[in-house]
Amino acid sequence: MTQAMQRQEAVTIHKNEAFAAVAEQLKPRLIYRECSPKQIVHVIKNEHMIHGWQAEGVQNAEDLADLLFGKGEEVILDFGEHLVGKLAIRIVPVGSPPDAPLHLQITLGEMPVEMAEPFSEYNGWLSSSWLQEERVHLDVLPGILNLERRYSFRYLKLKVLDTSPKYKVSFEEISCTAVTSADRSALSPLIHTDPELQAIDEVSVKTLEECMQEVFEDGPKRDRRLWLGDLRLQALANYETFSGNELVKRCLYLFAAYPDERGRITANLFMKPQVIADDTYLYDYSLFFVATLHDYFLATEDLSTLEELWPSAYRQIELGLERLDERGIVTDDESWWSFIDWHPKLNKQAPSQAILIYNLKRALHLASLLGDERKDELEQVIGTLTQAAMEHLWDPESGYFISGSQRQVSYASQIWMVLAGVLVPEHGKELMLRLLDDENSAIPMSTPYMVHHFIEALIQVGERELAIRGMKKYWGQMIKDGADTFWELYDPKDKSFSPYGSPLINSYCHAWSCTPTYLIRKYKL
Amino acid sequence: MTQAMQRQEAVTIHKNEAFAAVAEQLKPRLIYRECSPKQIVHVIKNEHMIHGWQAEGVQNAEDLADLLFGKGEEVILDFGEHLVGKLAIRIVPVGSPPDAPLHLQITLGEMPVEMAEPFSEYNGWLSSSWLQEERVHLDVLPGILNLERRYSFRYLKLKVLDTSPKYKVSFEEISCTAVTSADRSALSPLIHTDPELQAIDEVSVKTLEECMQEVFEDGPKRDRRLWLGDLRLQALANYETFSGNELVKRCLYLFAAYPDERGRITANLFMKPQVIADDTYLYDYSLFFVATLHDYFLATEDLSTLEELWPSAYRQIELGLERLDERGIVTDDESWWSFIDWHPKLNKQAPSQAILIYNLKRALHLASLLGDERKDELEQVIGTLTQAAMEHLWDPESGYFISGSQRQVSYASQIWMVLAGVLVPEHGKELMLRLLDDENSAIPMSTPYMVHHFIEALIQVGERELAIRGMKKYWGQMIKDGADTFWELYDPKDKSFSPYGSPLINSYCHAWSCTPTYLIRKYKL
Repeated sequence: MTQAMQRQEAVTIHKNEAFAAVAEQLKPRLIYRECSPKQIVHVIKNEHMIHGWQAEGVQNAEDLADLLFGKGEEVILDFGEHLVGKLAIRIVPVGSPPDAPLHLQITLGEMPVEMAEPFSEYNGWLSSSWLQEERVHLDVLPGILNLERRYSFRYLKLKVLDTSPKYKVSFEEISCTAVTSADRSALSPLIHTDPELQAIDEVSVKTLEECMQEVFEDGPKRDRRLWLGDLRLQALANYETFSGNELVKRCLYLFAAYPDERGRITANLFMKPQVIADDTYLYDYSLFFVATLHDYFLATEDLSTLEELWPSAYRQIELGLERLDERGIVTDDESWWSFIDWHPKLNKQAPSQAILIYNLKRALHLASLLGDERKDELEQVIGTLTQAAMEHLWDPESGYFISGSQRQVSYASQIWMVLAGVLVPEHGKELMLRLLDDENSAIPMSTPYMVHHFIEALIQVGERELAIRGMKKYWGQMIKDGADTFWELYDPKDKSFSPYGSPLINSYCHAWSCTPTYLIRKYKL
Repeated sequence: MTQAMQRQEAVTIHKNEAFAAVAEQLKPRLIYRECSPKQIVHVIKNEHMIHGWQAEGVQNAEDLADLLFGKGEEVILDFGEHLVGKLAIRIVPVGSPPDAPLHLQITLGEMPVEMAEPFSEYNGWLSSSWLQEERVHLDVLPGILNLERRYSFRYLKLKVLDTSPKYKVSFEEISCTAVTSADRSALSPLIHTDPELQAIDEVSVKTLEECMQEVFEDGPKRDRRLWLGDLRLQALANYETFSGNELVKRCLYLFAAYPDERGRITANLFMKPQVIADDTYLYDYSLFFVATLHDYFLATEDLSTLEELWPSAYRQIELGLERLDERGIVTDDESWWSFIDWHPKLNKQAPSQAILIYNLKRALHLASLLGDERKDELEQVIGTLTQAAMEHLWDPESGYFISGSQRQVSYASQIWMVLAGVLVPEHGKELMLRLLDDENSAIPMSTPYMVHHFIEALIQVGERELAIRGMKKYWGQMIKDGADTFWELYDPKDKSFSPYGSPLINSYCHAWSCTPTYLIRKYKL
């Protein structure tokens, strides 16, 4: 209890007040919608369903007001769709006047598993405080319980922990005020001839919509933060759908407003109580500021934003280059963290090299557009780094890029080298096909984030059919497994996988999984 | 879950709007006071202490802000006095920016046992919803947690259920806004030569103060309701101390405003969401409306209130008399409930007979004052009932009043017959002394409420020294056992006794236990 905790090494933030002011002015108008539960459900064991649980409708939610709940009794409601918002519950006592408070437990879940498995047994390594469960006492009944927090859910469980022997309660009215900053009226509809792609697009759009709040959040249930890696993909999906371009601009300004003393951009920002740059810096994420700005300019042609934020972007390139060793290869040691993907054994060197090249190329494009004289220098560096990659990271014998001192072969390395255009297109195609034929030897992908890049790499090498097949196998299967919104994590071979030690804590509506709508629409799949 | 619950037999309330309006206008001004914790304590096992637990100071509460708390860590604070009020806690994160909500458990207790024994193991028969424990999630830190509910406590335990590995929290500032409608500036101090009586008086006054809110509550922790039996005693203590006579008037009007269709006054009222008469009717409590009005008039000489409420009081007498059998004895059967005392085996017939006579005598006094022509009738009935009591309930052989078909001898029967003046003073004195000499054969007293009447009966028969000794043995011992305010329940021979199955749910600041200040001051003990 009295043990002091060491704060992490202090990082000094050099706030750019002007950028912060621009971001503040761009705060979006939130759009609200009133939603009601659709069904009363039972959650039953079913080993064929994801996590082993199935929600089964048993009664229309309109019947709820007629049901009475005493000590220990509970009900599970299904809102019929994933929602992000606040809850209000009108609770009426039945019996004698309530001679003791009502003690009520409220559990919210995106998935049936959250309704079925008790949170008290959660033992994962992310904080249990993310589990959406409240206990409240109501001293005065009847009354409306307005829960102050915002939840991300489809299912709601109400359990009466206690009343008194003299009364029970009924839940007369339950409503969720759903919230988003995504404007559906701006959404161009997709009418696809392939109903499976149509469905994948719809779930993607819904996923994006739920994550579009005052910023692009990574997940409305867990983290709820603005992450640069997620932002990049959300922005891409957004340009094809809601066109909430001001929100992208706001997020770019936010990141640019809170660099550290060296100009390095944080991996993520907290928005409350005020904007705070997290003390997490990821090699790849900082670099993606360049790509995100690049994509934003391509979508909007907003030159003044580009001009204003270009120095911040260029600075990420400079810092990225500082990690190069004398060979022109990103140094791999214990001191850094590059995200790339969740796989615990994944070596980050080769994919980081590729991501550096990927962003250098976008920087070069922007420098050309802006007439920045450092253009030539960038071009030269791209050449050097590409050559270094081929010389030191390409293994001609196996035909794969290798990473780290253990010469690890991973999907991530191959995919990012393809996306970075390190190989000529024909060789990129061969590499991707080799990878597909030989899938067990490489460190696999472990997140939709990585699978997105895999699909995009297939498209880039011209394998559109393989891309579509891959998308259906992954996001299409996720829908078959019950996704209303796309999940943070999904392994078709191990559907309850969680890198956090429990699927209860996984986010089932996650920004980085919303990209199929971008891939389908952008590439007209 | 869907099982319907039968409402208790419907009682129709005939609301008197005019009386309700008077009560509403008399709503007292609440007085607020800011209080801080005094010490950090450990609660340790000590079999010599009440409930086996002792709070031991370990650090000044001012040091609290320097301590950090991570997952599973907790602190117990002692405010140094019993408080009724609302809590505010300023919570500051230490470490990286909070990347997960704080999940905090807040436990409040009047006694060390509430800090030591987990509420999850509570298995008593009163609703566990009275146990003062909250679980809250804080999404934004630093922040001030303002708990909405009012608590009754001296001790506060804060336990971090979870944060995240990246941060801990400190509790920078904790304050309680204590509330009462008792005005200390109106309190006449007592300077007693006997320090033990002085201390008993002080704790009595504090108990009364804590229970004086928008009405006289029975206990600020549990029930928090206006009970007629408690009101009568609180009013008596109040006349000698805070003189909050308007509050007594308000409570009298409240009871008179919500009779049933027969004019019967409820045992208690709920105040929220609006005034509701409980569907509990107690034979003795309804009758005590007469005594309470009588005492109020003696203290205030407020004739207009007496005139206005006299019909309500008289109606209780009429209804009380309806229970008489042909012998003039209160009928004992399965259909009624007279409170008298908590002892599970106590027969209520004889004490109820005495309480009817006790209130008849006060009604007679009021009728005389008002010139009510029914005075003579009342006088005659008192004679009849007294004679009937002597004839059918007095057992000359044992020298005790007996009650019920089993001819039960109880403290309650003897005490109330003495208080009702059924015996001539000399015989009353003999009876009380006989009872004291012979304490094991009679059904004993089980609440401070009953012990109060025992002490008053001793005073009434002139045994002032025995009364003082009894008071010290009971309330004095309660103080030695750690009472800051007097407890709802106390058995010096079985200190953890609870009629509810667990001492956790007992109220440790209870209206009916506040009477020593009345006895000491009124009778100049």
